[in-house]
Amino acid sequence: MDPDRESGMGLMAQRPHVVIVGGGFGGLETAKRLRQCDVDITMIDRHNFHLFQPLLYQVATGGLSPANIATPLRSILRRQANCQVILAEVTDIDVANSELKLVDGVQPFDVLVVAAGATHSYFGNDQWAQFAPGLKTIADATNIRRRIYLAFEAAERQPDAAIRQKLLTFVVVGAGPTGVELAGALAEIAEHTLKNDFRKINPSETRIVIVEAAPHVLAHYPPELCLRAAEKIRSLGIEVRTHTKVVDVTADHVRLECDGKQEVIETETVLWGAGVAANPLGRKLATACKVEPDRGGRVPVDCKLNVEGFANIFAIGDVASCKDQDGKPLPGLAPVAIQQGAFVAQQIADRVRGNVNDKPFVYHDRGTMATIGRAIAVAQIGSRQFCGFVAWLLWLFVHLMLIVQFQNRVLILMQWAWNYVTFNRSARLIVTDETDPVSIIETNDVVHDVDRAS
Amino acid sequence: MDPDRESGMGLMAQRPHVVIVGGGFGGLETAKRLRQCDVDITMIDRHNFHLFQPLLYQVATGGLSPANIATPLRSILRRQANCQVILAEVTDIDVANSELKLVDGVQPFDVLVVAAGATHSYFGNDQWAQFAPGLKTIADATNIRRRIYLAFEAAERQPDAAIRQKLLTFVVVGAGPTGVELAGALAEIAEHTLKNDFRKINPSETRIVIVEAAPHVLAHYPPELCLRAAEKIRSLGIEVRTHTKVVDVTADHVRLECDGKQEVIETETVLWGAGVAANPLGRKLATACKVEPDRGGRVPVDCKLNVEGFANIFAIGDVASCKDQDGKPLPGLAPVAIQQGAFVAQQIADRVRGNVNDKPFVYHDRGTMATIGRAIAVAQIGSRQFCGFVAWLLWLFVHLMLIVQFQNRVLILMQWAWNYVTFNRSARLIVTDETDPVSIIETNDVVHDVDRAS
Repeated sequence: MDPDRESGMGLMAQRPHVVIVGGGFGGLETAKRLRQCDVDITMIDRHNFHLFQPLLYQVATGGLSPANIATPLRSILRRQANCQVILAEVTDIDVANSELKLVDGVQPFDVLVVAAGATHSYFGNDQWAQFAPGLKTIADATNIRRRIYLAFEAAERQPDAAIRQKLLTFVVVGAGPTGVELAGALAEIAEHTLKNDFRKINPSETRIVIVEAAPHVLAHYPPELCLRAAEKIRSLGIEVRTHTKVVDVTADHVRLECDGKQEVIETETVLWGAGVAANPLGRKLATACKVEPDRGGRVPVDCKLNVEGFANIFAIGDVASCKDQDGKPLPGLAPVAIQQGAFVAQQIADRVRGNVNDKPFVYHDRGTMATIGRAIAVAQIGSRQFCGFVAWLLWLFVHLMLIVQFQNRVLILMQWAWNYVTFNRSARLIVTDETDPVSIIETNDVVHDVDRAS
Repeated sequence: MDPDRESGMGLMAQRPHVVIVGGGFGGLETAKRLRQCDVDITMIDRHNFHLFQPLLYQVATGGLSPANIATPLRSILRRQANCQVILAEVTDIDVANSELKLVDGVQPFDVLVVAAGATHSYFGNDQWAQFAPGLKTIADATNIRRRIYLAFEAAERQPDAAIRQKLLTFVVVGAGPTGVELAGALAEIAEHTLKNDFRKINPSETRIVIVEAAPHVLAHYPPELCLRAAEKIRSLGIEVRTHTKVVDVTADHVRLECDGKQEVIETETVLWGAGVAANPLGRKLATACKVEPDRGGRVPVDCKLNVEGFANIFAIGDVASCKDQDGKPLPGLAPVAIQQGAFVAQQIADRVRGNVNDKPFVYHDRGTMATIGRAIAVAQIGSRQFCGFVAWLLWLFVHLMLIVQFQNRVLILMQWAWNYVTFNRSARLIVTDETDPVSIIETNDVVHDVDRAS
């Protein structure tokens, strides 16, 4: 190996080419912070937009449109002359030749920043994926949206009471922020949004179950806040099953296990908010760099966010396994990725300028928050805890401030204000491939419209 | 046949069941007008939303989100107690038993209103459909949006100048309102929206060709307005080819014919705004009622919009072939469908009340308009013609007023105002099925990032 690589200094070419894989929170922050730096940047993403993932559950439940939370990367970076964006998919990393393999080409680099994010993990049960979609991309969100609203449509037309009940049962696996937000939104849809929409079913009879293997919902929050959150969740009519594991998921039921006892819940709509694993690129990077990935496929990085032995290769965000000073792994949150992105940009800028920067990365936890439902959230800011309406206002403010584009911020605020006042969710579109015939009745029985009297 | 059916009177059951197929402009108008009437209404649609089709081209070009122009049918009709909505697909009509065959059941009716709308027609060349998508549904629009923006992305990464030029060539077939609106929006995207987005291509070198078999663009407009429209279109840098037929469409070119001379244009993006045919249900209804459909598959209707011989079966909108007093077929426009829907509702209400209503349907043409581009439109209101900015303001006003829901109106106005001021199109998302690997380079050559200097 070139000894210069280890020095963290001599590695820089005259005007190094920095390639960033992934235009999420981490990658975008790196690119933007390098704006004034004497480098050429190539941002590679398989999508043409930056996605504001914390609001993805709102798309999945019909409250917002995809374009409200997605901003074209080109439009964010258009005025940054040292940065080009390419739409491409990275398949592998060749560290010996300092190049990325793409589906349709190669991309050389001097400095590489891997910020490829995360995907779902079904803990080795990948066959569950078809029945229990996760929520990481726009396509996931519109898929979940279609399933949720199709279930109500099918129930409306279903004459068999048992099948109807099954259609109106929703199981959310995992009570982290995503699971809690999905379950809360489902409760709001059933209780308010669809209240007068149907003639034969009563959407408020919907059964929503949230399942969590850990002892508490929102397990990463302080214990007191967990208990208050669980109380709020129950008050929305959601059944909370903690200490409970999912042992099987099929097209028409889930099997749960709690204290060795099993239970079957009949449902056609299971939403997966449980497991997260690094983008497969994490393992490929680890293999290429001859380091051992963690169980979730994350690449271990040192205190400068370099993959060990490669001063020109960084990994940040959900694809990296990074520990804090106490040796605890950092959580997969946007603020972690953003702070890491800024740190890496500073590292690169210092090296380009020939400065020595020996400061290690330190994550500053400014707090964390999750919404539970209409005007209810939990938040921890420093040592202070909030629950209920105040936490929800905080959540609203923070998320609006974080949204990348000014326009989106105004549109989202208006959409939310409207949704809040009217209980409406105007983006509840069921969009299917036009070539599929629409069939939502699952029995072969012919359904007659028996109930004519209104 | 039951003689009562012919009378237009005795056909009414105590509280007749009116089944409306299609929740477009015509069907929705019928349902809403029957609000106070002593009938039970079932609205069947294969989508769960009403689509404001005149703005579909804005979704196809990334200016608006699908949810901006689609409103859930249930939410429009939620307060109308005599109406239920079902999500289903009608496959055939059994007039003898007065029932509809659905993909997954049957639906009996006393009175049937077929308002199933239109689809594309490739004039017998259905193999062109895969290369030249039409624009009738949300799925069509997001498909076209993906193609347009992928073409620019692929061009950015394409080292071969000839292929790059092909990727930056867009051909719009048909210079009716849809074709003109698409071509105008494409010109705006190339000239303004993407202006600074790319590093290697110059989007303003995009070539846009609009092809029309008739002698004029917007052929249904008064001749003087046609000429002014063509001038405006050319001023946007769009090539206008009138008197020109498309004789072949493949994955990488279109072949045109004008005055017996053929020309090939290399392009990967062909958009179809040419042919319209009735929903296939039109032919099925005609067969069931033993009448002859017109060439476009439309069912002929009499002066009361009944299919001949069936006083309890109406056809309206794009699925019906209806002639005005001069024997000219009515155009496939929203106002025609809306007026027909209102007329049919009145017919049904009068019959339920036992009134005789012998007035035939008369279409009141209040004018017609089409946008060409940024602040340019043509309009004909009565005998007055408008072209340019005033027409565009008229267009804006009329379309905002027609949008069904108040919320959408405000959001669309804000979105347009933003787009207008910033030249931005924030909904230009390329959303693909996640399982497909992203590959936009079509040659097998490995593409090196040769152009490193910025």
